[in-house]
Amino acid sequence: MISKQESGRRAKAAALFDKIDALLVTKPENVRYLTGFTGSNGMLLLLRDGSATLFTDPRYTVQSKQQTDCEIVIAKGTLTKAVLKAFTKSGARNIGFEQDHLNVAQFEALKKGLTLGLELVGVSGLIENLRMAKDEGEIALIRASVIANSQALENALGRLEIGMTEAEFAAEIDYANRKLGAEGLAFDTIVAAGVRAALPHAHPGPAVIGPGMLLIDMGVFHNGYASDMTRMVHLGEPTEQYREAYAAVLEAQLAAIDAVKPGAGVVGVDKAAREVLKSHGFDKAFVHSTGHGLGLEIHENPRIGRKGKGKLETGMAITIEPGVYLEGWGGIRIEDTVLVTSTGCEILTPTSKALRVVS
Amino acid sequence: MISKQESGRRAKAAALFDKIDALLVTKPENVRYLTGFTGSNGMLLLLRDGSATLFTDPRYTVQSKQQTDCEIVIAKGTLTKAVLKAFTKSGARNIGFEQDHLNVAQFEALKKGLTLGLELVGVSGLIENLRMAKDEGEIALIRASVIANSQALENALGRLEIGMTEAEFAAEIDYANRKLGAEGLAFDTIVAAGVRAALPHAHPGPAVIGPGMLLIDMGVFHNGYASDMTRMVHLGEPTEQYREAYAAVLEAQLAAIDAVKPGAGVVGVDKAAREVLKSHGFDKAFVHSTGHGLGLEIHENPRIGRKGKGKLETGMAITIEPGVYLEGWGGIRIEDTVLVTSTGCEILTPTSKALRVVS
Repeated sequence: MISKQESGRRAKAAALFDKIDALLVTKPENVRYLTGFTGSNGMLLLLRDGSATLFTDPRYTVQSKQQTDCEIVIAKGTLTKAVLKAFTKSGARNIGFEQDHLNVAQFEALKKGLTLGLELVGVSGLIENLRMAKDEGEIALIRASVIANSQALENALGRLEIGMTEAEFAAEIDYANRKLGAEGLAFDTIVAAGVRAALPHAHPGPAVIGPGMLLIDMGVFHNGYASDMTRMVHLGEPTEQYREAYAAVLEAQLAAIDAVKPGAGVVGVDKAAREVLKSHGFDKAFVHSTGHGLGLEIHENPRIGRKGKGKLETGMAITIEPGVYLEGWGGIRIEDTVLVTSTGCEILTPTSKALRVVS
Repeated sequence: MISKQESGRRAKAAALFDKIDALLVTKPENVRYLTGFTGSNGMLLLLRDGSATLFTDPRYTVQSKQQTDCEIVIAKGTLTKAVLKAFTKSGARNIGFEQDHLNVAQFEALKKGLTLGLELVGVSGLIENLRMAKDEGEIALIRASVIANSQALENALGRLEIGMTEAEFAAEIDYANRKLGAEGLAFDTIVAAGVRAALPHAHPGPAVIGPGMLLIDMGVFHNGYASDMTRMVHLGEPTEQYREAYAAVLEAQLAAIDAVKPGAGVVGVDKAAREVLKSHGFDKAFVHSTGHGLGLEIHENPRIGRKGKGKLETGMAITIEPGVYLEGWGGIRIEDTVLVTSTGCEILTPTSKALRVVS
């Protein structure tokens, strides 16, 4: 089960070391990306020459050997103690740590045990940025996750009935996803009926699904990789206002997708959606960003929003998900997972975006 | 939906301020405990006089107003910026922060923006310790979560068949729980068949459920509060070895429950289980702690183990879950959720612990 790609990733990461001689990787998704190790307790010390040691505990003695070709240290006490020993042995002077992951108490514990002359240097996003552009293997896993998630929606919609609660229908969605092999949810499934769709991140509750709009936002992990999709269905005949708002959001979503290509600034992609909504008078009703990267995490860089940074690159997998939310009326969001390709983009989500009425 | 109890909790927390004039609460469960706010992005600034401000983003404008009676600041930019402004306005000099939750980058960002004369002080477990003893409302919610989780097991067992995979049966359990109103899993459901039950935290996989032992560890959140239960079922007639091991674990579990009362040290409760297993020759086969607190999180203080600290208090909700694990044979664990009462304890989990054979 050990693949070659992880050592290539470690070499790429080490080549990015600037003011550091070594990097302590603590964020689980980054550890997994660089080693293949999926245990819940692991830290990786990566040196400038690309050599690396994985630290974990006795629960993972067997599993770590099966999953990674790194040197492995099974710590008897805390990982921190074992890591501090390795710091000293490594010959590194400036040791980077993931400052967006390590908490202050963990940092203080490391600092306290540090050999004289060694220095801890906060590092942000080094591995995360490497993870933005996906390789072929990752793209295949994201594609499979997205396709299964779409199939799960169809399976669940076959069981949708007026009178079900939001929570019950969310259970049908999650069950369909699990039966299709998902190892877990990428986030709590959102099922929001009627006026509750005005809450962009409504938790499915006891509210009964009646005639009217229904917002469904769902995603899962397959083999570690995320999917993410939002679709609207309307139970019974929609109002003219719903049709107009739906058309506006779809127009905005398609405009943003149209802007996706290598070299496009993320701010421009966000703007493409925002301007369409503005032209329909919905600029104040679009209260979040247009999208986000996804992969080993459900929310990754790049962030596709007004304050996003950088440009799109081939291999990035991102969501495009504009929405409008009107208190007391409801909300509409349409979301696909999209792959940036050398010639533009590919919509990975196979589910139709035609206005859907369930009778 | 706004209840009075959160303001009482804030007053209690503020009364515990020692070297701080204010506390920035960032851990989501702590924010929820003190405000009722359930959004994913929130920080709370609590002052010594008990007054409090919740900071969140525009996605939660409506929801935050529905859920909390605190002052609310909807931050247009980052929450950090808004929080820093409030620091200055508050008149506080020493401002506590949750050092086991805040990461180093967030801490540095706060520190950099701090008005001259203000000081950040790392605080550990202040709100978590307050959360250990549950009030009446919380106990009712935990009870409901536990009862529903037990019902879900019965519903799922009605669909158990030899030849199903562990993953498929886990999906049945999760579905049953969701249908009964669980808003989410408290942890990834464990279904471990035969020899795989020897792995205390096995992930349900493609392994087929055949005649033999089956370990099921399941828990969910209802209205924010966790449940946690482990039961064994045996498909087909069990061996004598299974019967003996089951009886030993049950005896250990009952002995530990017997030791649960206000004032009992957590180490003693752990020891009660451990000594019974030792008397049956299973001391080395019991590789984890006896239990843990639960509430808004699935793992809370107190930890009931050899290295646990402190004594039990009325209102604590804890698990009691000894187990034995024998590589190449399998494992047995029996777990209830138990409430510490003024006179001893109450087993909240209604599911029978009689040896269960499914034919």
